[in-house]
Order: sequence, then structure tokens, then C-alpha cells
Amino acid sequence: MELVSQALAGDRLALARLLSLVENGGDGAQDAVAALYPHTGSAHIVGVTGAPGTGKSTLVNQLARAIRAADTTVGVVAVDPSSPFSGGALLGDRVRMRDLAGDAGVFIRSMASRGCLGGLARATGDAVKVLDAAGFDVILVETVGAGQAEVDIAQAAHTTIVIEAPGLGDEVQALKAGLLEIADVLVVNKADRLGAANAVRALEMVIDRSAPQPEEPSAWRPPILQTVALDGSGVPELLAAVAEHRAYLDASGKWDSWTLARVESELMDTLRQMSLDRVLSRVGPDQMADWVARVAAREVDVYAAAREIVGASR
Amino acid sequence: MELVSQALAGDRLALARLLSLVENGGDGAQDAVAALYPHTGSAHIVGVTGAPGTGKSTLVNQLARAIRAADTTVGVVAVDPSSPFSGGALLGDRVRMRDLAGDAGVFIRSMASRGCLGGLARATGDAVKVLDAAGFDVILVETVGAGQAEVDIAQAAHTTIVIEAPGLGDEVQALKAGLLEIADVLVVNKADRLGAANAVRALEMVIDRSAPQPEEPSAWRPPILQTVALDGSGVPELLAAVAEHRAYLDASGKWDSWTLARVESELMDTLRQMSLDRVLSRVGPDQMADWVARVAAREVDVYAAAREIVGASR
Repeated sequence: MELVSQALAGDRLALARLLSLVENGGDGAQDAVAALYPHTGSAHIVGVTGAPGTGKSTLVNQLARAIRAADTTVGVVAVDPSSPFSGGALLGDRVRMRDLAGDAGVFIRSMASRGCLGGLARATGDAVKVLDAAGFDVILVETVGAGQAEVDIAQAAHTTIVIEAPGLGDEVQALKAGLLEIADVLVVNKADRLGAANAVRALEMVIDRSAPQPEEPSAWRPPILQTVALDGSGVPELLAAVAEHRAYLDASGKWDSWTLARVESELMDTLRQMSLDRVLSRVGPDQMADWVARVAAREVDVYAAAREIVGASR
Repeated sequence: MELVSQALAGDRLALARLLSLVENGGDGAQDAVAALYPHTGSAHIVGVTGAPGTGKSTLVNQLARAIRAADTTVGVVAVDPSSPFSGGALLGDRVRMRDLAGDAGVFIRSMASRGCLGGLARATGDAVKVLDAAGFDVILVETVGAGQAEVDIAQAAHTTIVIEAPGLGDEVQALKAGLLEIADVLVVNKADRLGAANAVRALEMVIDRSAPQPEEPSAWRPPILQTVALDGSGVPELLAAVAEHRAYLDASGKWDSWTLARVESELMDTLRQMSLDRVLSRVGPDQMADWVARVAAREVDVYAAAREIVGASR
């Protein structure tokens, strides 16, 4: 596939077009993924997630700069619709991102307008594959981390950074509770603010409670780092923690088990959509409309209708 | 099905058990939904969604009280994991909910721990059906409204209330932008705070931009209400707006088109899962593990593997 060869050879326009192709799905996307898939598997995929107001986007920007300063390349996939990378912020701080523009070692892609949910996870996974095949060393996937979809996407990363900040409201605090479970690296951003030390202490207590058991002494204990994304304080230490987690994954064999789990999850999602498509192509729109009308009229319930359509018996 | 008969006859313990049964899914859930489905279709399903920090849960509580005061019954399904209804809040303001306890005209159900995403939407839809069949006049579905999943669940309501509040951060503001599109009724809560008038004006501008076109003079224009959930100010007006929207749905025929769209969406989701289950039962776990290993080794890509497993040709 010529587009794939061009993109893999470093043609940025081809890369952008290839990303659009795989994001749109369909046969074209499948052919492209088939062509680029053998080239994937080297990138370190890093999810960055946090509740609104934690300064996540600014930190992603700083991380990208630090990765570049270490002479490694970086792709950014912004899934958060409120991210300035996605152009979704009302008060555009996209300005901040300008210092990354024009650098061939950086590629930023927004997934803001990917429509339906299942589609978003698939499109994000395929966009990451494209950037992986194109040779980017690290791929940062930014998600807002509220809602199960974002958590799922964040978990589709080798390393998940969860960002907190002092002084957010109680509801935001509660939102974050679910995120702690998926964190490999914890960050208290805005660490120059009142309450940062308290936030770190609270996180330490949570981590201690779920600390490695004696029978599993080699397990990873998520470090808690403090950053001030606005001036870059603590960002080198954060990058070091991310590198340390990658070394841990390699040494423990978890890099490989991650790959298996990730492939299984993608295969299930693909099977789910493909088998539905097959059923729908057999039934046809008129017959489907009939079924919908009968269910709406309470003549039959949705499960019984689905069983008849699939031709399944229990 | 005896459990269904008991729950529909007003047995609260049976109702709780029936809710657990349908939430857990599987054959038992399908049998229960089949038995109760003919009794559904009367309840007014009202989604209540808003970004963290808007005071959403407190407002849901006040709305439930106001509905009871009007001598109608109310079910609450809390999907938000940070909701005090779900017991998920770190600082438990569950205390506030106690004034609803012990009233047979109220039933509160938390969906906090429903696991995977597709499962959550299905479980929520089925829980709403149970409360609908059990005769609750209004069913409030509370979601955090961040992330596509929550938006999808909020849209599975006849009437969607979107809650805003003055003085939240920019990122939270941006999050809310996507919610405006699905709002039937807009609420600026914490209306006693500085900035409430500005928030209302900002919302009015957004609404004006997407105002009904001349060729569609009968379209619904989302009203913007101001509330102070802590003391209940504005809650009667909010309830009146919800009733007005229901009258609009009835008069315009949109109640029926909503039902058709909802059934279609549920049927698709059910077909997707059922057709996957059929494929998996045919392939078996050993063969699936082989496929996963081959994809992980980059011998074949995920789409090609899925096509072979489904037995589909392109």
C-alpha cells in the first residue's frame, strides 16, 4: 500500500492521510492496518489521564518537550474533547502547543470528533498503531479520565499516568478515586499550590493500602511525583519514572503479557462489530424496521427479537 | 415469573432482587425482561447530567422530593460513580438522601459497580425498564456527563436536564460544551453565586445560535433555569419545565419516535453481543488463544484474524 510506505518513510502529509484513513474505519482502514501492522510493537504507549482542571494538557505538552529534549521522538493522540490539542477548549491555549510545531520528531493527532464510543476506542487504537509503525518512540495518549470509555482507552497503554491537583471539588476528588486503580505513575500537578502536600499524603495512604503483598515483592509500586506543568518543574523526574516503568515491564515479562491482553481485547471488539455487520447484511433494513416496530409495540421484548434475528436458540 | 409479579405488585424486596437479576445479565435477566416488558412504556425517563462540581446529586435529591410532593412516584438510577446515591463520594453526603428513605413512592438504585461499559448501558436500560414496569411515574437517571458513555446514557432519556454552575474551571466549561447539544432543559445551579448571570447569558447565546429555524417553528427551545439546590430555590420551576417538555413530546409525536429510536439502539447492542457470543461458542477458548498469540506475534493483523474467525469473506 503506497500510502503506508510513504508514511513509514517519514512523509508527514502521507502520515496525516493514513491517520484519517484508519480513523474512518471500513475496508480501507483494514487494508492499511494489515500493511502497517508488522511494523508495530516498538513504541512505548503512555496514557495520560486526569480529571478536568488538573492541568493535564499542559503537562502533556511539557512531557512531549522533555521527550524531544532526550532526543527521542513522540506522537500525541488527544482523545479528550476538551483538550487544547483537540482544539476543543473554549479558551484556546493551543498557543502553548506552538513550540512543538514544525518539529519532525513530534506528531500531534486529535481524536475529538470520532463520533460513537466503540468507534473512538477502535480509532484511537488504530491511530496509535500508525504512529507506532511510523517509528515514534513514545506515544502519549491523553484522555480526560472521566467515564469508563476514557478509562478503557487509558488502560490500552503500557504505562498510565494519572494526574491529580490540589484544591479540586469533592466530586472531582471522587471521580479520581476510580482512576487510582489504573495508575502506574501518579502525579500531583500544580504542586506549588496550597494543599499539594496534603494531596500527596492522601495518595500515599491509598497506595500503601494497595501496596505489594509480601508474596509478590517484585510488584510495581506507583511512585507519586510532584510537578508544576506551567514552568516544567518535576517534568524530568516524571519522564524518568515513565522510563523506569518501561524497564520494569521489560524485566518482568509484563510487556509481553500486556501485548497479549491488548490483542485479545481488540480482537473481541472487532469480532463483535464484524459479526453484527454479518447479521445485518443478512436481515436487511426493512425487516429490521419491522422488528423495531414490534418491540416498540411491546409485542416482543428486545432479547427475544434479537434471538430470532440471529437465528439463535437457547 | 414470580419475582416479576411480586415486584410489580409493589414488593420492594422483590424489586431490589429483580433489579440485581437484570443488572447481572444472562439468561435470567432475559427471562425477567421478557416478563416485565409488556408493562413498560408509561414512565417519563429524565436524564440528569452535568460536569463534576455542579451540584448535580443535590439537585437530583431535590427534584425527587419535589416529584413526591406532587404526589407522583419517582425512581432514581445513579450511574455516576461519584454520586452519593452510588455511595461513591469520598466525603459522604449520603446523609442528604436520608429524607427520601422509607418512602414507598421512591426507589433509589446505584449502578456504580457495573463493570464494563457496554454492560453499564445495557444494565442501566434494563434497570429503568424494571422501575418503569413497577409503575414509577418518573425515573431520574443521574450521570456525570463526562465521556461519551455518559452522554449515551443521558440520551437514552425522554428529557435530558443538563446542569451547569458558575465559576468552574475552563476545562470543565469545555467539557460541558458537548453536553449542551443534548439538553432539553438547562439549569444553572448555585445561582446564588457570583457569575451565575454570566453563565445564563453565555448559555442563552449558545441556545440562540442553535435556535429553531423559521421552517420549524414548533421545535423545542431548551429553557434556561436557575436553581440553588442546597435550599431548593427554583426546583418547582425546574419540575414544571420537565412536565412541559413531556407535554411537548406527547403533542409533537416525538414520544413515539423516541421509543422507536431507543428500541433500535437497544436491539443493535443486543445483536452485537449475541452474535459475538455465537461466534465465541463456535470457536472455543483454545483456538481463540491461538489467534491472539498469532496476532501478538504480528503474523496476522487483528482484522484479518477476525475475518477468518467469523468465516467472513470480503
